[in-house]
Amino acid sequence: MSSSLRPGVITCKAAVAYGAGQPLVIEEVEVSPPQPNEIRIKVVCTSLCGSDVGAWLSQSLFPRIFGHEASGIVESIGEGVTEFKEGDHVLTLFTGECKRCKQCTSDKGNACQNLGLERRGIMHSDQKTRFFVRGAPVFHFCAVSSFSEYTVVHTGCAAKVDLSAPLEKICLLSCGIASGLGAAWNVADVSKGSTVVIFGLGAVGLAAAQGAKLRGASRIIGVDINPRKAEQAMKFGVDEYLNPKDLDEPISQVIKRITEGGADYCFECTGDVSVVTTALQSCCDGWGTTVTLGVPRGKPEITAHYGLLLTGRTLKGTMFGGWKPKSDIPLLVYRYLKKEILVDEFVTHDLQFEEINKAFDLMKGGECLRCVIHMPK
Amino acid sequence: MSSSLRPGVITCKAAVAYGAGQPLVIEEVEVSPPQPNEIRIKVVCTSLCGSDVGAWLSQSLFPRIFGHEASGIVESIGEGVTEFKEGDHVLTLFTGECKRCKQCTSDKGNACQNLGLERRGIMHSDQKTRFFVRGAPVFHFCAVSSFSEYTVVHTGCAAKVDLSAPLEKICLLSCGIASGLGAAWNVADVSKGSTVVIFGLGAVGLAAAQGAKLRGASRIIGVDINPRKAEQAMKFGVDEYLNPKDLDEPISQVIKRITEGGADYCFECTGDVSVVTTALQSCCDGWGTTVTLGVPRGKPEITAHYGLLLTGRTLKGTMFGGWKPKSDIPLLVYRYLKKEILVDEFVTHDLQFEEINKAFDLMKGGECLRCVIHMPK
Ligand SMILES: NC(=O)c1ccc[n+]([C@@H]2O[C@H](COP(=O)([O-])OP(=O)(O)OC[C@H]3O[C@@H](n4cnc5c(N)ncnc54)[C@H](O)[C@@H]3O)[C@@H](O)[C@H]2O)c1
Ligand SMILES: NC(=O)c1ccc[n+]([C@@H]2O[C@H](COP(=O)([O-])OP(=O)(O)OC[C@H]3O[C@@H](n4cnc5c(N)ncnc54)[C@H](O)[C@@H]3O)[C@@H](O)[C@H]2O)c1
Ligand SMILES: [Zn+2]
Ligand SMILES: [Zn+2]
Repeated sequence: MSSSLRPGVITCKAAVAYGAGQPLVIEEVEVSPPQPNEIRIKVVCTSLCGSDVGAWLSQSLFPRIFGHEASGIVESIGEGVTEFKEGDHVLTLFTGECKRCKQCTSDKGNACQNLGLERRGIMHSDQKTRFFVRGAPVFHFCAVSSFSEYTVVHTGCAAKVDLSAPLEKICLLSCGIASGLGAAWNVADVSKGSTVVIFGLGAVGLAAAQGAKLRGASRIIGVDINPRKAEQAMKFGVDEYLNPKDLDEPISQVIKRITEGGADYCFECTGDVSVVTTALQSCCDGWGTTVTLGVPRGKPEITAHYGLLLTGRTLKGTMFGGWKPKSDIPLLVYRYLKKEILVDEFVTHDLQFEEINKAFDLMKGGECLRCVIHMPK
Repeated sequence: MSSSLRPGVITCKAAVAYGAGQPLVIEEVEVSPPQPNEIRIKVVCTSLCGSDVGAWLSQSLFPRIFGHEASGIVESIGEGVTEFKEGDHVLTLFTGECKRCKQCTSDKGNACQNLGLERRGIMHSDQKTRFFVRGAPVFHFCAVSSFSEYTVVHTGCAAKVDLSAPLEKICLLSCGIASGLGAAWNVADVSKGSTVVIFGLGAVGLAAAQGAKLRGASRIIGVDINPRKAEQAMKFGVDEYLNPKDLDEPISQVIKRITEGGADYCFECTGDVSVVTTALQSCCDGWGTTVTLGVPRGKPEITAHYGLLLTGRTLKGTMFGGWKPKSDIPLLVYRYLKKEILVDEFVTHDLQFEEINKAFDLMKGGECLRCVIHMPK
């Protein structure tokens, strides 16, 4: 390949965060060419996940380009890349799959040892960034950073998808919806006829509800402190809604009473670690299982009285619903295309890229499930 | 039945605890006749479990008769009892099985809702005691109280066993050994070729090791702060011994290094809740599972950084190793008789009833695995 054909730096627009909770600034950024085993993607749509909002509000690594739930089209490929070509449609992966490590080669784990969740704001391969504003590096988020017209990701952090799938919808399968469905299917392995409680009725919680419903759960109780979340919840399988703020006894007591001893499965999808304790208290002795998905914004310690465990409870956590991200995402897209799983219904708002701060306001204010941000064509 | 045939009060010897950590006093006690659905047992042998010592040291309900790991012979039966008859050999059950509740009728749970762990020192049926010393009631322990020549238990808290099984050995299957084996088999479901860490090399931990070994675990690491525990450990399948006190870095770091990322399964069999956290840290991302069995003597709260769970770990607790106590114990006795599981090897000391305080000293001092106390013939 002659050097003139090698991809160069692209200058484009990105939404840069300069401080915790501060409005993003749309800036001109320079996006480096993809390095070996990387691809550069023209982002088409990116939805805002609770984890973006959480990190933006609570983390301290700035300047930074957030966004990790996204769809796009391969613009160029780095050296040695054979798996992708220009024009491929992809979803980004906030936790990757190298297909070689102990986790990737086992049939159980998805915590890739080489391309796992990257918290330092840099690329896995060389611990550097691919973004620069006025010559200064800008940190990544989860090695994805989709709040930019173009971004660079490792080939292990992208999944090729069917060209017929609508990119403005399936971006939701890149994180939230897949995580919720997988929590119900892969992690809890919800059984037919069971009683399920979902704590947190955002998109992640409602996807877990949908997963439980599709498995034949006979009763799904939704819990959220925001009463607006009750309205949409029924669409995704939630049968009853409880607001802890409306009750004059602890929510776990109410749940234990109405379920005669506690639920079979509880899902914590709030990001509040104290809810993990409540969820454990709300599931039954003997086999009650709590799956925790939330990424806390504050105190990171989970606590539980040992007696809750001694009596036979299980507490499990999960990243990306236990899916092998690269291997399994195309399958989820296929199931969506077959109309086996709801995705469109989670999109409550569509906004243009320039309005990205409004998306943050909507999520922060609990006004939406998923807001899809459309990048300039 | 004429009233003269009804069993009367028995006066016999029992070891009564009058205060936390105080030597037991062998007293003359009056043992009430068995009430409806109860049986009175002549205790033959009772071994001392870590839970007896823990409760004796840390609880505040006195006077009390401890002991829950025992074998005996049915002396008399209460009204309506058809399942047992005088002369039957039984093991006592610290957590019972009513065979009717949601737990007992499911194929998963063993936390019986009617005859579960009784912490208030009374009988399940009438919330009273069956022991009196000089006219004053004496509290039970786990509704078993085997440190008495005779004791009364609910029929759901006793398992009939083969007459050919040696009562002076199989008493160990009444709690500790069964709990450890079940933790490995029923709860963790240890798989062939896996790496296992056992925290706490008392009888419970070593039974878990034995269970893991029989399942084909390829590497079993034993951890104990008492170096004397290393000697016997190898008999039960432990391959390597680590003493956290000998290390100059955290034990979880050492385990992660020598196992290349952490163990597949960790068992907490110490009764120290901080070890639960260490165990979670010592098992691997993706599928690492910690099973906690210990009953803490102090702080009852388990804590863990949410990130340990997010990366795919599971924390499970268990009482009596997930066995349905009444249904499954006869099977374990059978497997012992077939020489499929070790039991005799756990007995490091045999003592007469009068020497019971020595048994407490031995357990408290970390000098023994199991001390079998032989009741007067
Ligand atoms: N484990 C994973 O792989 C994974 C993937 C995606 C998102 N997440 C995390 O899952 C959580 C949910 O994500 P989301 O996108 O649905 O976010 P979201 O903000 O849309 O939804 C969270 C919901 O929880 C509710 N809530 C907050 N505190 C509560 C409490 N104490 N009791 C009851 N309800 C409460 C909020 O009102 C809101 O409706 C976030 O913490 C996010 O970071 C984890
Ligand atoms: N869940 C159940 O059904 C069940 C059944 C029986 C016993 N138990 C509990 O299991 C535990 C073990 O019982 P046991 O009879 O084997 O008791 P034990 O006292 O014989 O054994 C406990 C061992 O743990 C070691 N230990 C204590 N603290 C430690 C630490 N910080 N790190 C490493 N090792 C440590 C001790 O040196 C000892 O060897 C007790 O807490 C007991 O109450 C639970
Ligand atoms: Zn990998
Ligand atoms: Zn029962």
